[in-house]
Amino acid sequence: MLVATLTIVGVGLLGGSIGLAAKERKLASRIVGVGRSRERLEPARQRGIIDEITLDLAGAAAESDIMVFCTPVDQIIRQIQIAASASRPACLLTDVGSTKRHIVESIENSGGNPASFVGSHPLAGSEKQGWEFAQANLFQGRTVVVTVTTRTSTAAVARIKEFWRMLGAVVVEMDPAEHDRVLAQTSHLPHLTASALAASMSLKTEQMMLAASGLRDTTRIAAGDPDLWAAILHENCREILPALVSLRHTLDRWQAALEKGDRGAIESLLEQGKQFRDALGN
Amino acid sequence: MLVATLTIVGVGLLGGSIGLAAKERKLASRIVGVGRSRERLEPARQRGIIDEITLDLAGAAAESDIMVFCTPVDQIIRQIQIAASASRPACLLTDVGSTKRHIVESIENSGGNPASFVGSHPLAGSEKQGWEFAQANLFQGRTVVVTVTTRTSTAAVARIKEFWRMLGAVVVEMDPAEHDRVLAQTSHLPHLTASALAASMSLKTEQMMLAASGLRDTTRIAAGDPDLWAAILHENCREILPALVSLRHTLDRWQAALEKGDRGAIESLLEQGKQFRDALGN
Repeated sequence: MLVATLTIVGVGLLGGSIGLAAKERKLASRIVGVGRSRERLEPARQRGIIDEITLDLAGAAAESDIMVFCTPVDQIIRQIQIAASASRPACLLTDVGSTKRHIVESIENSGGNPASFVGSHPLAGSEKQGWEFAQANLFQGRTVVVTVTTRTSTAAVARIKEFWRMLGAVVVEMDPAEHDRVLAQTSHLPHLTASALAASMSLKTEQMMLAASGLRDTTRIAAGDPDLWAAILHENCREILPALVSLRHTLDRWQAALEKGDRGAIESLLEQGKQFRDALGN
Repeated sequence: MLVATLTIVGVGLLGGSIGLAAKERKLASRIVGVGRSRERLEPARQRGIIDEITLDLAGAAAESDIMVFCTPVDQIIRQIQIAASASRPACLLTDVGSTKRHIVESIENSGGNPASFVGSHPLAGSEKQGWEFAQANLFQGRTVVVTVTTRTSTAAVARIKEFWRMLGAVVVEMDPAEHDRVLAQTSHLPHLTASALAASMSLKTEQMMLAASGLRDTTRIAAGDPDLWAAILHENCREILPALVSLRHTLDRWQAALEKGDRGAIESLLEQGKQFRDALGN
């Protein structure tokens, strides 16, 4: 596989890592970065993450063979619509948004060429932001979900899957709504919980040194960008709610066990948590 | 500082790491490991974690200069009482229990020589268990709390602080009840939360690959030993309850924000979590 022009819209941690990985694997003849600010893009070009920069999304679309949208989930739909109407028929568009149902439905119902778009979600990234943290091996061995609906082009899915595999990822196909239900549990509820745990702490400065690695691990993702994550959690709130209710039921049982000082119940709750965590692996 | 005979009661991750660190820093002329099973202790001796092994706690106490109790929190009190009545007056006893109020009060009220005991809690360890995971640098730069009450001997505290510093730790003095209040927040609630989050997942096997690093980080400590942690959480349930109630209030606000689809409220909650996490540091 060789892409003549690969365009990355939004050159941050994910977009920058796609650029680095594509360069390292010689996946594209030319990599164009689209952003809002030349000042932010120019140093990324100098570091060799992208070859060319532009602020003109429609202009870039007209010259692209594959476009990857790495912008916040509440901007992706509008940007794909602009790009899709300017791109050539053979150009494929995908995104890296953490929610999929709303994005995929909106694009498929917006009247363009639905064959040109396939939703993606690479399960990679961190609480860090910006191309400064980009890594060529960010996708190595990581799962990328590629969404498939009744309207998705089989040929487009095959090409987008190949694209991610070339970057080192393991690709799974999934219905967008199922993706959102599963991610509500595996990503969005953990983020919410880490944030709530962090927010519920009331510690004096000198007590902060009593924070061991458990608290650091458990709350690490709470350092993520609130604006970015508010967009994700807001977009998927319908699916996150039942997951949150399930967590609250477990916490009800914890509270009862602690109030009774019931050591057996405490141990049984811990056993349940361990069972899932051991199954999850490292 | 040189300890003639250092005795480690309970040669697991922490006890084993004390042995390795003491050897590396030439802190003791002789290190004795006390346990329940020769079969478990002998390979630790062969690996050079301890010099001698015994199952006879009172016999070991009679020959010790410093004894460190690294057994589960619900066994420490009884073992210290046995050792204290068999040890020489100059022998110092400390422990590594994750809760302190009950242990320190019990020892101080049990009528022995209170000058010989100082409670300790090294904020080090992991979800791993056993001396197989012991590391000589486990305490390097880590916080160790040493408890001080009106009945604690100043000379004993100074010597125990020196002991931990020799192992690389940063020592802070604290009242046992304050220790338990702070640890309820910085360690016990995170453990409970990680466990509850893990237990609330309902995923099919093929959906497990959609678990990104956020879920792994957030639930890592849920893999810890349920028996060990049940003892800790049970012993400190009085202090954990208000911390849990505070978390539940934050989750109430999350649920309301999601039910309303209120993006502003979601972002504001995330900002609060980020504020604490950024202050905590890496």
